[in-house]
Amino acid sequence: MKGFAMLRIGEVGWIEKDIPTCGPFDAICRPLAISPCTSDIHTVYEGALGERTDMILGHEAVGEIVEVGNLVKDFKVGDKVIAPAITPDWGSLEAQRGFSMHSGQPLGGWKFSNFKDGVFAEYFHVNEADANMALLPDNMDIGEAVMLCDMVPTGFHGAELAEITYGEDVLIIGIGPVGLMSVKASYLKGAGRIIAVGTRQRCIDLAKEYGATDFISYKEGPIDQQVMELTKGKGVDKVIIAGGDVDTFIEAVKSVKAGGIISNVNYLGNGDYIRIPREAWGVGMTHIQIVGGLMPAGRLRTERFINMMNYNRLDVSGMLTHKLHGLESLEEALELMHAKPRDLIKPIVIV
Amino acid sequence: MKGFAMLRIGEVGWIEKDIPTCGPFDAICRPLAISPCTSDIHTVYEGALGERTDMILGHEAVGEIVEVGNLVKDFKVGDKVIAPAITPDWGSLEAQRGFSMHSGQPLGGWKFSNFKDGVFAEYFHVNEADANMALLPDNMDIGEAVMLCDMVPTGFHGAELAEITYGEDVLIIGIGPVGLMSVKASYLKGAGRIIAVGTRQRCIDLAKEYGATDFISYKEGPIDQQVMELTKGKGVDKVIIAGGDVDTFIEAVKSVKAGGIISNVNYLGNGDYIRIPREAWGVGMTHIQIVGGLMPAGRLRTERFINMMNYNRLDVSGMLTHKLHGLESLEEALELMHAKPRDLIKPIVIV
Amino acid sequence: MKGFAMLRIGEVGWIEKDIPTCGPFDAICRPLAISPCTSDIHTVYEGALGERTDMILGHEAVGEIVEVGNLVKDFKVGDKVIAPAITPDWGSLEAQRGFSMHSGQPLGGWKFSNFKDGVFAEYFHVNEADANMALLPDNMDIGEAVMLCDMVPTGFHGAELAEITYGEDVLIIGIGPVGLMSVKASYLKGAGRIIAVGTRQRCIDLAKEYGATDFISYKEGPIDQQVMELTKGKGVDKVIIAGGDVDTFIEAVKSVKAGGIISNVNYLGNGDYIRIPREAWGVGMTHIQIVGGLMPAGRLRTERFINMMNYNRLDVSGMLTHKLHGLESLEEALELMHAKPRDLIKPIVIV
Amino acid sequence: MKGFAMLRIGEVGWIEKDIPTCGPFDAICRPLAISPCTSDIHTVYEGALGERTDMILGHEAVGEIVEVGNLVKDFKVGDKVIAPAITPDWGSLEAQRGFSMHSGQPLGGWKFSNFKDGVFAEYFHVNEADANMALLPDNMDIGEAVMLCDMVPTGFHGAELAEITYGEDVLIIGIGPVGLMSVKASYLKGAGRIIAVGTRQRCIDLAKEYGATDFISYKEGPIDQQVMELTKGKGVDKVIIAGGDVDTFIEAVKSVKAGGIISNVNYLGNGDYIRIPREAWGVGMTHIQIVGGLMPAGRLRTERFINMMNYNRLDVSGMLTHKLHGLESLEEALELMHAKPRDLIKPIVIV
Repeated sequence: MKGFAMLRIGEVGWIEKDIPTCGPFDAICRPLAISPCTSDIHTVYEGALGERTDMILGHEAVGEIVEVGNLVKDFKVGDKVIAPAITPDWGSLEAQRGFSMHSGQPLGGWKFSNFKDGVFAEYFHVNEADANMALLPDNMDIGEAVMLCDMVPTGFHGAELAEITYGEDVLIIGIGPVGLMSVKASYLKGAGRIIAVGTRQRCIDLAKEYGATDFISYKEGPIDQQVMELTKGKGVDKVIIAGGDVDTFIEAVKSVKAGGIISNVNYLGNGDYIRIPREAWGVGMTHIQIVGGLMPAGRLRTERFINMMNYNRLDVSGMLTHKLHGLESLEEALELMHAKPRDLIKPIVIV
Repeated sequence: MKGFAMLRIGEVGWIEKDIPTCGPFDAICRPLAISPCTSDIHTVYEGALGERTDMILGHEAVGEIVEVGNLVKDFKVGDKVIAPAITPDWGSLEAQRGFSMHSGQPLGGWKFSNFKDGVFAEYFHVNEADANMALLPDNMDIGEAVMLCDMVPTGFHGAELAEITYGEDVLIIGIGPVGLMSVKASYLKGAGRIIAVGTRQRCIDLAKEYGATDFISYKEGPIDQQVMELTKGKGVDKVIIAGGDVDTFIEAVKSVKAGGIISNVNYLGNGDYIRIPREAWGVGMTHIQIVGGLMPAGRLRTERFINMMNYNRLDVSGMLTHKLHGLESLEEALELMHAKPRDLIKPIVIV
Repeated sequence: MKGFAMLRIGEVGWIEKDIPTCGPFDAICRPLAISPCTSDIHTVYEGALGERTDMILGHEAVGEIVEVGNLVKDFKVGDKVIAPAITPDWGSLEAQRGFSMHSGQPLGGWKFSNFKDGVFAEYFHVNEADANMALLPDNMDIGEAVMLCDMVPTGFHGAELAEITYGEDVLIIGIGPVGLMSVKASYLKGAGRIIAVGTRQRCIDLAKEYGATDFISYKEGPIDQQVMELTKGKGVDKVIIAGGDVDTFIEAVKSVKAGGIISNVNYLGNGDYIRIPREAWGVGMTHIQIVGGLMPAGRLRTERFINMMNYNRLDVSGMLTHKLHGLESLEEALELMHAKPRDLIKPIVIV
Repeated sequence: MKGFAMLRIGEVGWIEKDIPTCGPFDAICRPLAISPCTSDIHTVYEGALGERTDMILGHEAVGEIVEVGNLVKDFKVGDKVIAPAITPDWGSLEAQRGFSMHSGQPLGGWKFSNFKDGVFAEYFHVNEADANMALLPDNMDIGEAVMLCDMVPTGFHGAELAEITYGEDVLIIGIGPVGLMSVKASYLKGAGRIIAVGTRQRCIDLAKEYGATDFISYKEGPIDQQVMELTKGKGVDKVIIAGGDVDTFIEAVKSVKAGGIISNVNYLGNGDYIRIPREAWGVGMTHIQIVGGLMPAGRLRTERFINMMNYNRLDVSGMLTHKLHGLESLEEALELMHAKPRDLIKPIVIV
């Protein structure tokens, strides 16, 4: 089969590979709609995961099942399915410990385009099909459905880790597609004020629709100073980091109240250390919690997001700014993610 | 001063009392807007709290401060404030244990119109003013502000106790003003499907606006049977009880999945026992949790709800169906709550 | 193979069956040590699970692997393993929801001697072997290891559900083997006073060793009255129910403070309803939580209990009051559980 | 009155001050037993809190009440009481938010010897007496009782923040008096293996009694390397930091599993930044949580620890290595904390 792959750090291209084989609990799918992710860019052009040779890229896909293992119970050939970016081993000790995304090893649930061929190919393989896929509803746009693979579950995880409750003030750093979903997710946990950090107009407009109430540009000074002005020196209750770099945490700590949570869903590609300012962190005593995590996945979670879309709690259509057609347009779609034109939020490829 | 009081079980009327005295941490207010509550009806006409003699009724008020204790720091005479129905003793052991509403004794935070004169008077007394009141924002309608005394915090507590998370299916039994707020609160925790039980059209219409997706009438058969039909035998993830009686729990247990939560915010006025059906409760083994609780209050929580209203997360205006004027109209307002005409949700008295 | 089975309600006996077949993720074991459980008695003599015909009994076993599926990674033929009573399907939606013990259906993780042949046989079958079994440490007594199948995880779950914290007062109703483990588990969550309800001297002696500080006999009046005397009217923070019947909850509710938790790990074999006294439950408003649940299992949890035994946090040897030898002595062991002589805590059969 | 004070950074001495005045909710006590704390050393000799002039030191005392405010309900002159180091304002917004120790401002519950005169004087003042003090039981050694002011609640908070559960492996860095209490607290949350970092023999011996199973010396290489050797590359579930400096967090992050918690109860006196190693922190994605916090206090918590001591769950006598007599010996006691002889754990001054 044909696949669009990372040939080595800094280089991509089409390659030929065997169609993956299907174990007794697995499924083989052909993609119907796919989307490239900023992580693909990190992986290829920054070598963030280290060297990879001829690894097929991509981890966001809606597909059609072409083969299922003989022990799969709930899916059959021809079913259209959403396959999340993370596909855990559900029996692993880590999953039993509550961290299925780290099954086998840290980040071990992230298989596609990490240590297994991804979905940018004629066919892709899903482990533990019954547990890891969800049926695509008839009435759902397949492009929007692709957003349930990574953007929605990752963005919403930011609000989950931040344990947002009714009426809290939240700072969200970064309003790319993940940050936008964190805005919506914060709104859907009952946040009061939502201060967003971002400058691209298209993102700002959509963030407003999703519930952001104030905007800050990092170009106009340290984030924490602007937050303190807006909140009259009180700071915010919670911070979600969905953009920036290792030094973003310094501003985050300085923006949050004692007892607050800083929740990171941003892939930190560079730098040796995240730094926590000792004094702002209350000499270790202010109960400011710092945590970051890969998105949880699974069929249940995916079905719950489907449920939210079905009942109009969540509309992701505004994020799909660029629509391309045909597997061959993947190259162009990935290049869009690389170049990031100002009107881009998320490109989608309809196969 | 003049006050509208429960004279004895079954009888109400105007009485004269001394203006309450103000301790060092307290405040004395004159009401600007007040609302009667179903609990007042329970208290007077069902004798639900036992006999009370010449006790001034009412526990939902926005007022203006006329006197403050010398140790009050954040309020002064002339300030307009929201005084929640529950006014805990914040240093009590129960508050330190996380249950301020039970300070001193079970339900001990519920002082107004329970074991202390209420707000249906020319003046009322607030204990621990700094901790228990919140400043009324200039731009807020005082009638809507009164909803922050009891309806909002009680209805939202239903969703808090139910620990609703993204995409869950929720059953809400009862859509009077508290149940309506539970609908909105469930939506603002990210619920997927929200099935509401109620029959009055005005409530159904408002419930839809707040996020209800399906409606059930208890007149058309057992609730659980209708829930099972709607959910294809799966049941709901959570149940909020905001109406009904002690037997409502039987239908609730039969409607919920293993691991679900049944959260009660309904004052249970009659009956010796709530009954849990042994088999549906999985012979004690299904992790179906049953809990009910008086609303949490306090200045922080009230300010957070103000925050939500300021940022348009919450609009309670639709609940104010009947507006009356003058302290003397309290009698009529209470009688409205007693008679419950089909177009009534909540009456408000502007003083 | 030979198995000791429930022939029908009220009748047990030896039967012949085929050796179970081994799926790709499964294991077949021969038992090394087994123990009957009160549930076996409920199942056979009360018909608590309904009719069962020729179903092999037993769900507590340490065994030796005689066959493993080709996809099992961490176990091999000849390994000695602990097989917990509950063996979930780890990819199920219920497991993803946090309730693996209810995988597929309520109580669906309880397969052995419920809807699948149990361990009282020459061979038994374990599903998802890598996820559901734990290696028996060389230095561990196999009789003690059998306690990790049900008595330890069930008793400890009582303390988990009760969310016991440092210095809390706990009431534990029932000090059979499960209740004894709840005593130890409460101690190991930092409980202060532990009031135990029970009358058999051998159990009382062991409960003292495990951390019980006071004893109550239900023969000397209502439990709640005795609790209120002991606690000077304050009640306890938490209650664990590990014995009694559906009416035990009435005394439990009357014994606990506002905000307390009543945690049930007792199989409720009879009665239509558990009853919650309305007034003591604060007319639905005291935040007294009522919950009960089947034990969580899995390899991680089992390994953690092994860890506790290895580091001398937990000594179950005192519970093994009756030791029998040979598979054929199962009949006598089960009869011991049925007759419950006063010096019995738990019998063990070394095969 | 006479008090032993920080005169300025680097200098201590006896001064004369007025006896503090007693507000309506307050109490004035004379100390019966007091203990200096490492924080006093930080404050005086490192200037960790900034300059302080003539501020009386000390925040660990058992005292006798000599005056109470007219609104104090539960205490009277002559009562012997335990006064914790942290005395929150219980009605503050921060306390309502769940962080009473940060009432008014970050660390605002820490008043004694921070921004208010401490307990090293003939008399000391306690705010909100009913909420902040606990009655000394008749049978309790007053020296041991002083350990309930700071060492016990701080050490136990380390295990609380780490959310330790049954059978987990825990690393505790530092086994001074606080770390020793974290060892005991971990044991009393059901920890399996407890690896302690420390070198002083007297501390090691006591740590073993409290439940430590393995010991590591930071002198023999990086902590994480030794942890990985001991755990065969798996790492620990949780880390409690009760010693070291800002760089200790690097080794902590490298020692813990994905999903683990690093809980800090160590006052970080120096350094600009705590550093989190980006790769070991899973590029921001491993759910390794980092949190640190000042001890929670209050009468309820203190009474719960009293409860634990009464029922022999906790024995602090081994920590009292040096006993001095008379207020005047405070100077010597503080000097002991400064010099830290190898056989010192905690000195106590009986007044």
